[in-house]
Amino acid sequence: MTSPTAGAPVAATDAEIAAIAWNGDGLVPVVTQDAATGLVLMLAWMNEDALRATFAEGRMVYWSRSRRELWRKGDTSGDRQWVREAYYDCDGDTLLFVVDQEGRGACHTGAPSCFFRGFGTGATPGPV
Amino acid sequence: MTSPTAGAPVAATDAEIAAIAWNGDGLVPVVTQDAATGLVLMLAWMNEDALRATFAEGRMVYWSRSRRELWRKGDTSGDRQWVREAYYDCDGDTLLFVVDQEGRGACHTGAPSCFFRGFGTGATPGPV
Repeated sequence: MTSPTAGAPVAATDAEIAAIAWNGDGLVPVVTQDAATGLVLMLAWMNEDALRATFAEGRMVYWSRSRRELWRKGDTSGDRQWVREAYYDCDGDTLLFVVDQEGRGACHTGAPSCFFRGFGTGATPGPV
Repeated sequence: MTSPTAGAPVAATDAEIAAIAWNGDGLVPVVTQDAATGLVLMLAWMNEDALRATFAEGRMVYWSRSRRELWRKGDTSGDRQWVREAYYDCDGDTLLFVVDQEGRGACHTGAPSCFFRGFGTGATPGPV
């Protein structure tokens, strides 16, 4: 695994940010994908503060719905995520970030991806 | 593009389905990824009926939150999605399906992926 240590700030425009359809709680789901392998790593949530912090730092900052605070991914675990590309979908209600994953992986269990359990198979997903 | 015409039914166990953490509306977000390219195609939602239909048919069946009905993806557009692999995440509150995408692509705009707009760049995502 590479050891990325910096991300790319994203110069999103106000018009792009205005196109986001936040849900009733002011949040949007975020899909995070590994730039090197294409593996879907996790799904988490952002509010506008988290999104703007992510853009400014070039590093994934989510909103923790359970702790109700900004969640600067990897501050505790070291498993930080550095932004490479950032997209929003056709109706603006989901974001996709392509990242360099630092450390062991995205999952708090130590797995590379949070999607390590397969229905009917128990299989672990690999890069597709 | 290949022209897949059948999917693989998924023999999920009751224990696996019981591990899913449905939200307050009885729904779970579903990330759909292209098996051939690794491209993240879309995010949509399923209730338990949609999930069981997807497993039985080997074809993606979502829950349309706007129409409040089962949404058998591609019945109108022809852009059906055939299941290849199905995963659930570490806390059971998100699903990941790897599919063969039929037709033009996943997006109602005709784009291969719904995530065709890049923040700050206008770039279209490609396979990673």
